[in-house]
Amino acid sequence: MMINFVTLATLVDRALAEDIPYIDITSDLLIPAEKKGKAIITAKENGVISGIPVAEMVFNTVDKHLEITKHKKDSDIVTPGDTILEISGKLISILKAERTALNFLQRMSGISTQAKKISDLVKNNNAKIVDTRKTTPGLRMLEKYAVLMGGCFNHRFNLSDAVMIKDNHIKAVGSITEAIKKAKKITSHTSRIEVEVSSLHQFLEASEADADIIMLDNMNLRTMKEIVRLNKRKCILEASGNINENNIAAVAKTGVDIISVGSLTHSVKSLDISLNIR
Amino acid sequence: MMINFVTLATLVDRALAEDIPYIDITSDLLIPAEKKGKAIITAKENGVISGIPVAEMVFNTVDKHLEITKHKKDSDIVTPGDTILEISGKLISILKAERTALNFLQRMSGISTQAKKISDLVKNNNAKIVDTRKTTPGLRMLEKYAVLMGGCFNHRFNLSDAVMIKDNHIKAVGSITEAIKKAKKITSHTSRIEVEVSSLHQFLEASEADADIIMLDNMNLRTMKEIVRLNKRKCILEASGNINENNIAAVAKTGVDIISVGSLTHSVKSLDISLNIR
Amino acid sequence: MMINFVTLATLVDRALAEDIPYIDITSDLLIPAEKKGKAIITAKENGVISGIPVAEMVFNTVDKHLEITKHKKDSDIVTPGDTILEISGKLISILKAERTALNFLQRMSGISTQAKKISDLVKNNNAKIVDTRKTTPGLRMLEKYAVLMGGCFNHRFNLSDAVMIKDNHIKAVGSITEAIKKAKKITSHTSRIEVEVSSLHQFLEASEADADIIMLDNMNLRTMKEIVRLNKRKCILEASGNINENNIAAVAKTGVDIISVGSLTHSVKSLDISLNIR
Amino acid sequence: MMINFVTLATLVDRALAEDIPYIDITSDLLIPAEKKGKAIITAKENGVISGIPVAEMVFNTVDKHLEITKHKKDSDIVTPGDTILEISGKLISILKAERTALNFLQRMSGISTQAKKISDLVKNNNAKIVDTRKTTPGLRMLEKYAVLMGGCFNHRFNLSDAVMIKDNHIKAVGSITEAIKKAKKITSHTSRIEVEVSSLHQFLEASEADADIIMLDNMNLRTMKEIVRLNKRKCILEASGNINENNIAAVAKTGVDIISVGSLTHSVKSLDISLNIR
Amino acid sequence: MMINFVTLATLVDRALAEDIPYIDITSDLLIPAEKKGKAIITAKENGVISGIPVAEMVFNTVDKHLEITKHKKDSDIVTPGDTILEISGKLISILKAERTALNFLQRMSGISTQAKKISDLVKNNNAKIVDTRKTTPGLRMLEKYAVLMGGCFNHRFNLSDAVMIKDNHIKAVGSITEAIKKAKKITSHTSRIEVEVSSLHQFLEASEADADIIMLDNMNLRTMKEIVRLNKRKCILEASGNINENNIAAVAKTGVDIISVGSLTHSVKSLDISLNIR
Amino acid sequence: MMINFVTLATLVDRALAEDIPYIDITSDLLIPAEKKGKAIITAKENGVISGIPVAEMVFNTVDKHLEITKHKKDSDIVTPGDTILEISGKLISILKAERTALNFLQRMSGISTQAKKISDLVKNNNAKIVDTRKTTPGLRMLEKYAVLMGGCFNHRFNLSDAVMIKDNHIKAVGSITEAIKKAKKITSHTSRIEVEVSSLHQFLEASEADADIIMLDNMNLRTMKEIVRLNKRKCILEASGNINENNIAAVAKTGVDIISVGSLTHSVKSLDISLNIR
Repeated sequence: MMINFVTLATLVDRALAEDIPYIDITSDLLIPAEKKGKAIITAKENGVISGIPVAEMVFNTVDKHLEITKHKKDSDIVTPGDTILEISGKLISILKAERTALNFLQRMSGISTQAKKISDLVKNNNAKIVDTRKTTPGLRMLEKYAVLMGGCFNHRFNLSDAVMIKDNHIKAVGSITEAIKKAKKITSHTSRIEVEVSSLHQFLEASEADADIIMLDNMNLRTMKEIVRLNKRKCILEASGNINENNIAAVAKTGVDIISVGSLTHSVKSLDISLNIR
Repeated sequence: MMINFVTLATLVDRALAEDIPYIDITSDLLIPAEKKGKAIITAKENGVISGIPVAEMVFNTVDKHLEITKHKKDSDIVTPGDTILEISGKLISILKAERTALNFLQRMSGISTQAKKISDLVKNNNAKIVDTRKTTPGLRMLEKYAVLMGGCFNHRFNLSDAVMIKDNHIKAVGSITEAIKKAKKITSHTSRIEVEVSSLHQFLEASEADADIIMLDNMNLRTMKEIVRLNKRKCILEASGNINENNIAAVAKTGVDIISVGSLTHSVKSLDISLNIR
Repeated sequence: MMINFVTLATLVDRALAEDIPYIDITSDLLIPAEKKGKAIITAKENGVISGIPVAEMVFNTVDKHLEITKHKKDSDIVTPGDTILEISGKLISILKAERTALNFLQRMSGISTQAKKISDLVKNNNAKIVDTRKTTPGLRMLEKYAVLMGGCFNHRFNLSDAVMIKDNHIKAVGSITEAIKKAKKITSHTSRIEVEVSSLHQFLEASEADADIIMLDNMNLRTMKEIVRLNKRKCILEASGNINENNIAAVAKTGVDIISVGSLTHSVKSLDISLNIR
Repeated sequence: MMINFVTLATLVDRALAEDIPYIDITSDLLIPAEKKGKAIITAKENGVISGIPVAEMVFNTVDKHLEITKHKKDSDIVTPGDTILEISGKLISILKAERTALNFLQRMSGISTQAKKISDLVKNNNAKIVDTRKTTPGLRMLEKYAVLMGGCFNHRFNLSDAVMIKDNHIKAVGSITEAIKKAKKITSHTSRIEVEVSSLHQFLEASEADADIIMLDNMNLRTMKEIVRLNKRKCILEASGNINENNIAAVAKTGVDIISVGSLTHSVKSLDISLNIR
Repeated sequence: MMINFVTLATLVDRALAEDIPYIDITSDLLIPAEKKGKAIITAKENGVISGIPVAEMVFNTVDKHLEITKHKKDSDIVTPGDTILEISGKLISILKAERTALNFLQRMSGISTQAKKISDLVKNNNAKIVDTRKTTPGLRMLEKYAVLMGGCFNHRFNLSDAVMIKDNHIKAVGSITEAIKKAKKITSHTSRIEVEVSSLHQFLEASEADADIIMLDNMNLRTMKEIVRLNKRKCILEASGNINENNIAAVAKTGVDIISVGSLTHSVKSLDISLNIR
Repeated sequence: MMINFVTLATLVDRALAEDIPYIDITSDLLIPAEKKGKAIITAKENGVISGIPVAEMVFNTVDKHLEITKHKKDSDIVTPGDTILEISGKLISILKAERTALNFLQRMSGISTQAKKISDLVKNNNAKIVDTRKTTPGLRMLEKYAVLMGGCFNHRFNLSDAVMIKDNHIKAVGSITEAIKKAKKITSHTSRIEVEVSSLHQFLEASEADADIIMLDNMNLRTMKEIVRLNKRKCILEASGNINENNIAAVAKTGVDIISVGSLTHSVKSLDISLNIR
């Protein structure tokens, strides 16, 4: 799995401590400690699965002796009834891990499912769909991973790894030209410089100043098309702002390179997945 | 605010470390360190606000000298254009905190808004709407708080603080009667004992065994009504399973005491809220 | 073991870091790294053992290759000379873990021993003996577990999982009746509502207001008997305040349901247990 | 206060998170948020107080606006009815912090009280009473501080800061002489080398090998006296093993320099201290 | 200061806990608690100072009442005898913080001093000097900041924020062309793609495949000059490998854009700085 | 390895989280997940190796299935071309761990190499070379261990484990005599008392007051010789202040017992060590 396991272990530990601060007063007190069982995790609606290694770590953090058989892998498409995982071992352990494992798996799969749906809408265009920093505090690593698993791409992870010059930065520095010039001087050569513009006029200034990426904020389709034409593939063009399932295909057709979609992570419907003991 | 500030500080610290691991390579490098500014946080759609003290802590963790004026308080209703918060101080500090503060505020307000909507649907009945453990790993404290702010109520927080005897527990122990008897013997006297049943027959057994709360899992309206009638207010009755905006009013009318709704926290649309520098 | 292992691992890690911040300057520098040994952990007085899985985790955190044979399990009665655990492996590892393992084991067994002694004093009555929140900061999980192992029961774990309306709450709200009414409205349906009363008069008000549990604070035996008679098993009655080995049998005979004893955890004599290398 | 405040803040945070993981469902839901109050913390039995700065930090972690007036300072003697602290501010904040503050204060004062009692028993001798590593896991810093406040002294804090050659080390190296020789070669010059002996014969060998400190393990008074005579103040002599209130004066009279007493920290009765709202 | 204060606070806390795990057994036991003093931190050799806000945080974490006057700011040049900071307040607090504050300040200033020296050697060329990931584990944020303060620049911070295709990646994928093609497809548009080449031939392949940055690994001056000529400013060229004070001017003259120097952080001489009580 | 593994695991986790906060966007995205490889870690210059168990833990934290063969052990001398470690397993795992493992190994080996060099300069004298508290914040455990591996010794670890009375302490107490007297009264008997003196006169006072260790601060060779003569082996004598490779042999010849050298840890050149995939 392409996720830092050290960081993931911390997230899993915290989630389990949140759900079982002391003991599981139902399972620990009612179920014989040695009773074995087998659980099946099943998809209950259509979607794209992700978070399988996270769920696996939840189960094995509760009980390293639980045996897990994976019937699907992250980014796989599932339909109702598909078996995703089988878990065998002590019944108490399975029941303790159940809710936490599903909470991760359902959220991540919900994101991947939505990412797949969105990316399918533009699959005949060159535009890449990317996420934003509008993620759940503390879970960005997993949410951006889930975006990848659904076939979309990642924008910057945080304020330290890429430059994005917005309206307020421009005002503070004086002009787009000045801001780009200053940024070029000090930014690491590994990072491109992105500028947000909201008009054709600003686009021209940013392009002149050799911005690497120009974000077209909340523009109409006509202006975007015009900018694509004028740009002649010089700068990377990113469309942003209120782009959703209804208008994304049209935006993609303007010829922009990148489309960023906040709802990929800020408004997510969990995928319906359940665990049943056999 | 009715939230443990020690725990909240940890959540805020982690969220900021996630978004600004090193420096903000745009703001720190472009904006003069001493430049002051004023930001307005505004609602852009109808909803119920919550998370104001969280946003406040984010801003003051980045810079304890930022001055914050609160125009709304948690559980207030907002309409588009309503000012929620004003923040004054160093521009760099405001820009660094912006996304993290909004990420908390928008998610929490999204939950409160949905909770308000759901609770309004049953306001002429006695049923209390409660949440579930289907929360975002690590953020349960804030999400359950947001549910309260929207006018719904909280079910148990975790596996340690209340007993819920489910199908698998019953199978492992032998019978509903046996499971309740065992649970009564060892559970803390401060916690009620809840049993999940899926038929009238099981309800009768659970009632006979003196369960405190009986959860009616995925039952049709007719059966629920019959159970309410037979129960004669002896046990607390909770309806659960696939209850949504469309059917919740009907469920409430059956006369059950409690209705638990997973989607209050597992599928949330962030409330649209924005920050603008003046 | 009925304890959250994630949380326990943190406690064990902290305890070891406290006792061996750098190296063990005696063992690490004097004992050949590969020298093997075998240790026996033995009871040196009569008592009830608990904390065996904790001691086990201490040894295996220091050295996962230490082999541990358990001759007793938690809640077992021990007499002087009884072997509790045998540990085989590198001598340095055993010596490094020794004190930390014993510090956990002796404290927990001290609590279980006292709990057994107290519960034996009331074994012919129906009253359950429960602990309080007067636990050692940071170790409540282990101490409450040790209480269970000694045959007593747990009161609430913390301020978040059960309602206890005390004198100060009543004063702030206005009356017992008002406080109970308010609490009923907002408390989770999974939690019973407990009220502290200090007179027959207050008991009657609490009972009338349908409190679920009524705590009789520092009452004399005669008043408690009268309350038990008047209560007719309607509310759960809990006796509390200065109850000790001398008077607990008499308190139990009044017919109360629950007796809470702070000294179970706030004043504990460690059980004498030693480790010897063979 | 002579305690590392960074470490203390962590202990206080953990203790509060343990007692109030989410909200205080009694105080937060019943008491008006702005209601002010004043609390008095009072001694209810004779003893030596310690932990006042810890209690203070608990109150101010819950609410930095609580105002605290100290009527006593650590190491002060208290008698029943003595006011220790007054706390003024929001009533909810006081009630949330109460139990955690008292749990620290009562345990620490219990240790200081016992330390005072023990040290008074030998006050006409030169022997210093010291503690051991038999402390509560995670709280050693506070417990050793409480020992100091009661007029006793500290032995080593952990396995990294002083050498103590015990029976098992001697066996592993071959002889007392060899073990001391090896230790002298590698131990930091700032640390004295202590050897445990259980006979006159072993004492002579340790003395010959120039041990800095010789611990006389479980010896009878006659042998200790003889060793004191033979030692002629060359090595520091420490008596250890089953020393209690009954025999400590006699041990002190043998002329040993140091007496270590495990029960100072391993078996502690909390001092009775209460908080009342005025 | 352009450093994440949340993360910095954690570093400072850890450093203080490392140096004062319990109490300062010299200062706490010898110096009267209320005695005030004033300390001057002075440069004892020529250099560039950095880490002043870190030292400040160390002093104020130990004692928030210490008053600090800053005579220099980060990136300032100092000569022997220059006063950097004055600290006034409790003498015990100053002495406890002294070593930890200096340990940060001396290391960071050592790096800034070396960065200044290196950057001065190439100041008549266009080449930017950058650091590497050869930093001290856990302190990368501070070390990269110190590099900036000395007038050099930062390369990528970590493996997550920029792509660097090395020899082993190329072998695993098959060819430079293939590796770049694959990377372009999936890398965030905000990050440039860098490839390491070790020959003119490899350079040509990387350039043809449209690498954004080409790292010339351990090449001789002649080859680098030839590559600069052929490149015609198409790709960003980075020289790397065994570049030191002796050869860096010559490397800069080849016309490369970037020179990375591992010794900026992997081999650092602390700047001589001392604290004296007045 | 003579290092606390619990603490080490934390250092390793932090270092890996620092270098791979999310994913390794080069290796994770380019290299087939199952591709296996073998890496050789080789010395590229003469030195003393240390940190092998740390590097091992880095590799196995990233991937517990990596197989590691150790060709050297800590404190071994290496020459250019010597194989230190071989690592086999998934190529992605090796590449992710590479930089972090080397960053630890190179720093620690740099310290051990310098320690060996310094200790060789005095090997014909009795003086022990010791380190100081001038270590990298957070890494003291590893740096002091590396000093030992190079054949030097450790001074105190922190302010809690040994008494060092400096100029400022003396001034605050009144006199050397008074300070030593006070310290003797309260310091643990396991710790020797060290006093810093800067003149023959002060030495005499400290000796008269029965200091255990006297540190001769920045004295010339003649004075040190005179003090050694007068001391007649009564106190332990430690030379300190500006002692380096050039003058250390002469200092050792004065007959002092201990020489402390700050540069062992405050100014370290990493040993050149590289990892190559075979």
